[in-house]
Amino acid sequence: MSKEIGITVKKAEDLSEWYTQVIIKGELADYSSMKGFMVLRPYGFAIWERIRQYLDGRLKETGHSNAYFPLLIPESFLKKETEHFAGFTPEVFWVTQAGTRELSERFAIRPTSETIIYDSYSRWVRSWRDLPILINVWNSVLRAEITATRPFIRTSEFLWQEGHTVHATKEDADKEVMLILEIYRQLMEEQLAVPVLTGYKSEREKFVGALYTTTLEAMMPDGKAIQMGTSHNLGQNFAISFDIKYLGKDEETHHAWTASWGVSWRLIAAMVLLHGDDKGLVLPPAIAPIQAVIVPIYYKETDAASVTDKARQVAELLTKDEIQIYLDFREQYTPGWKFNEWELKGVPLRIEIGPRDVERHQITIVRRDNSQRLTVNDEMTLGEVRKHLEDIQAKLFGRAKATLDASISESNQYEDFKRILEERGGFIRACWCSSTECEDAIKADTGATIRTIPLTAETPRFSCIKCGKPDSKAVYFAKSY
Amino acid sequence: MSKEIGITVKKAEDLSEWYTQVIIKGELADYSSMKGFMVLRPYGFAIWERIRQYLDGRLKETGHSNAYFPLLIPESFLKKETEHFAGFTPEVFWVTQAGTRELSERFAIRPTSETIIYDSYSRWVRSWRDLPILINVWNSVLRAEITATRPFIRTSEFLWQEGHTVHATKEDADKEVMLILEIYRQLMEEQLAVPVLTGYKSEREKFVGALYTTTLEAMMPDGKAIQMGTSHNLGQNFAISFDIKYLGKDEETHHAWTASWGVSWRLIAAMVLLHGDDKGLVLPPAIAPIQAVIVPIYYKETDAASVTDKARQVAELLTKDEIQIYLDFREQYTPGWKFNEWELKGVPLRIEIGPRDVERHQITIVRRDNSQRLTVNDEMTLGEVRKHLEDIQAKLFGRAKATLDASISESNQYEDFKRILEERGGFIRACWCSSTECEDAIKADTGATIRTIPLTAETPRFSCIKCGKPDSKAVYFAKSY
Repeated sequence: MSKEIGITVKKAEDLSEWYTQVIIKGELADYSSMKGFMVLRPYGFAIWERIRQYLDGRLKETGHSNAYFPLLIPESFLKKETEHFAGFTPEVFWVTQAGTRELSERFAIRPTSETIIYDSYSRWVRSWRDLPILINVWNSVLRAEITATRPFIRTSEFLWQEGHTVHATKEDADKEVMLILEIYRQLMEEQLAVPVLTGYKSEREKFVGALYTTTLEAMMPDGKAIQMGTSHNLGQNFAISFDIKYLGKDEETHHAWTASWGVSWRLIAAMVLLHGDDKGLVLPPAIAPIQAVIVPIYYKETDAASVTDKARQVAELLTKDEIQIYLDFREQYTPGWKFNEWELKGVPLRIEIGPRDVERHQITIVRRDNSQRLTVNDEMTLGEVRKHLEDIQAKLFGRAKATLDASISESNQYEDFKRILEERGGFIRACWCSSTECEDAIKADTGATIRTIPLTAETPRFSCIKCGKPDSKAVYFAKSY
Repeated sequence: MSKEIGITVKKAEDLSEWYTQVIIKGELADYSSMKGFMVLRPYGFAIWERIRQYLDGRLKETGHSNAYFPLLIPESFLKKETEHFAGFTPEVFWVTQAGTRELSERFAIRPTSETIIYDSYSRWVRSWRDLPILINVWNSVLRAEITATRPFIRTSEFLWQEGHTVHATKEDADKEVMLILEIYRQLMEEQLAVPVLTGYKSEREKFVGALYTTTLEAMMPDGKAIQMGTSHNLGQNFAISFDIKYLGKDEETHHAWTASWGVSWRLIAAMVLLHGDDKGLVLPPAIAPIQAVIVPIYYKETDAASVTDKARQVAELLTKDEIQIYLDFREQYTPGWKFNEWELKGVPLRIEIGPRDVERHQITIVRRDNSQRLTVNDEMTLGEVRKHLEDIQAKLFGRAKATLDASISESNQYEDFKRILEERGGFIRACWCSSTECEDAIKADTGATIRTIPLTAETPRFSCIKCGKPDSKAVYFAKSY
C-alpha cells in the first residue's frame, strides 16, 4: 500500500483530518456530488447492518414491530404541534412540484416522522385494547445542513431508526423511555465498546415538543462530547394535537401518551473516533463485519495447494462457529498490501498461513488492537480465536471507559470551569440552578452545554457554577459535536 | 369477528373490492392522508422482511453488497442520459426549497437511482481490478401517480431493492442480468408460490435507457398480467453519459457495461391476489411471518393451567425447529374471534389445544388452504406440522401453476385474439413481426401489450397476428396491471 493509500496524519496531531482519511480511505463512506450528502459504501453499510441486526433483535424481543410510513409530510401536519414546527422548519427540504404540476400545499421531506405517523395512529387507536402501539421504523431523514458537514456526524441526510410508541398512561410511557435507554446503553457499551453517560436533557436542549428527553453521551479524544441517541417522553402534547384518544376500561375517553426514540449512523462516527489509531480503524469484534481475515502467504507455486487448503479448512472451522471470516485469496495483491488494507479497515484479527505454519501444524494470529503476534497450534485454533476476539472487545471497552472516567472533572468555580474547558475539555460535573439564563450565559461564555442531568440526582450539591444560587443540582457540561 | 371486520365480498364477484378489503382489514397496509401514499403496517412489513431476508441472503451468496446513496438527485444528473430523463421527469417530485432558501438547482427525489449511483461509480472505477462492482440498495423511490392508486400495486412511493452493477464486458453484464433473473424466479416461484413467465421486453416496453430488459410476469385471477420484477442490461449508455471507464489488462481505456434490476413490494400484491380466498389472505408458509398460530381453548378455569402449559410446550418444540409460531394468549378475545382473525391474516396452520387434546395426548391442526382438520398424536407434532407446511407450499404453487398454464391461449387470427382478450384475458401466445407499429396498433385496439418475448425463440412460427408479415416470432400478449 502506497503512502497515499494509508493514513498520512497522526490521530493525536490532527484528529479531524485523521477522521476524514479513515472514513474515506477505509471505504466506509464517500462524499457525494449532492453537497452535504454522503454515500454509505458497502463496508460502512455492513457495519450499519451489524448495528441494525443487534438493535432490531432487541426491539423485537421487547415487543416492537417494524413498519414504514410516507417520506413526505404535508406542511399542515408539521404545523399542528407548534414548537415542533418551529424547531424543524429551518432545515426542511420542501417539495413544491410533481412532474410539471405546482402543488397546492408544500410537502416536507421527513426531518423526523412524528406527525405523519400520529396521523395514522389517530385512526388506529380506539380502545385500551389497541394499546400499547410499539412501532419502529428504519429509514433516512433529511435536515438541510447549512454549516460544514462531516461524514456520519453532520450530513443533510442520515440513516437512523425512529421508534414511535403510544401508551395509556404516563407511567407506561416513562417505562418505555427507560427500557429503550437501557437497550441503547447496551448497544453502545457492549457492542460498540463506547461507554456513555446517561441522563436527562435540560428544557433548552430537549426534543422540540417533548415532555422530557433522555440522552446517551460519549466523550471523544478531542475532549468534545457526542450525543449518541435520545429517548423522549412526548407527554400528551402530540396526542392532543393529533387527536389520539382511547376509550379506557373506565368507559371514559382519554388522550394517549406518546414516546419516541432514535439512534443514527452517528454511532459509527463515535466508534471510529474512539478506537481508531494511526493505522486506521479498530473495530470492536461484536460489530466488525469481518472479525478475522485469513491471508495465505506463499512465494513458491509448489506451496500454493497446501497453504490454500489449510486456509480453507481454518475458514470453515471458524465459520461453523459463526465467526465472520474473510478468506483473502485475491491474486492481484501481495500479502503486505493486504495486511495494510485490513489494518486500515480495522479487522480485529489477522490469521496468516504460510508453508511453515502448514509444516508445524499451526497458524499465526495478529491482533489489530495491540499488534500482538501469536503462534497457535491447530487444535487450539477455535478456542484461541474466540478468546482473543472476546479479549479485544473487553480491552477496547476497558480502555475507553478509563478514558471517559479520566475526562470527567469536577468544578465549583467559574474561572476554573472555563479554564478546564479551554485546556482539556471533557465532561465537567458542576452544579446549576436550573435557570435557562445561566445555561445560556455559560454557553455564550464557553461554548459548553449541559450534556446530561443524571437520572438519579447526584450529591454533593454545590451552588450554581454561574450565579451562585444555592439550590442547584449536579449536571455534566461539555463542548460537543 | 363481526361482519364488518371480516371480508364482505366474494373474491370471484368483485376482485378489486375484495383485494382492498383483504389489504386493509388484514392490516397489511393502510391509506395515508398523503394522497397516493400508503402506510406499510407491521404485519405487511413482516411479510416484506421475509422477502428481504431471502433475497438479501441470495444476493450476498452471489457476491453482492448493500450500500446507501442520497435520496436527492440534481436535475443535471437526470438530464445526462436523455431517454432516461424523458422517461422519468413526468412523475418526479421536485425539491425547490431548503428551509427558507430557494435552491439554485432543483433536486429530484429519486424515481430510481442510476444517475446518482453512477456519479459515484465514475470515481470508484479506475482499473479492471475494480470490477465487477456488485451493489444493491434497499430503499424507497417516489413516482407521482396521477391516476388512481392501489395499495402495493400503484402508489406514489414504494419500497423496493435496486441493484446496480458494473462490468468489464457485455458478456459479464449479460451473465449478471440472467443470474438475477433466475434468483428472482426462485424467489417468486419457490417462496411466494407465484409462477411466472420470463422473457425479454420489447423495445417499446423496455426500461428507459436500457440495451434490453428482461422481465418476470405473473397472471392474476382477473386475466390481467402483473410485472413482478425486471433485470436490465444498460449497455454502455450510462457508462458513456457518466464517464465510467477502466484501464483494461490490455492497458487501454474502456467504457464499462452496467446492469440494474429490481423488485418491489408489488410482489406482495401478486401473492395476495393469487392465493387469497373469500375468508381473506392465504400466505405461502415460506413467506408467512407466522407459520402456525397456537390457540388455547378452555371454558373452565380449572382447565387453564394444563391447556396453556401444553400450548407453551408445543410452541417451544416448534420454535426450536425454526417454525415461526404465535402463541395467542390474548384474553380479550374468544377462540372463535381469533380463528377468524388468523384466517383473515392467512396464517397457514392453526393449532387448537383444548382439555380433550390434553387428555388424549394430541393436538388439533387446521389448514388454512383447504380447511382440513386433523388430529395429531403428541409425538407426531413436529413431523406433521413440517409436512403440512411443505404440502401447503407445494399445493399453492401447483394450483397457481395450473391456473397460469390454463390461462395461456394461442391465437393466429386477430379477431379471435381480440375475442379471447375480451372474454377471458390471460396470456395469448401469438406471433409478431417486431414492428412498433403493430405493437402500438394492438395496444390501441385491445389494451394488451407484449408482456414477454421468450428467452429462447419458440416454435411454431406463424405470421404476425396484426399485419400478417411472415417473418415473425412468438411472444406473449396480455392486459396488465
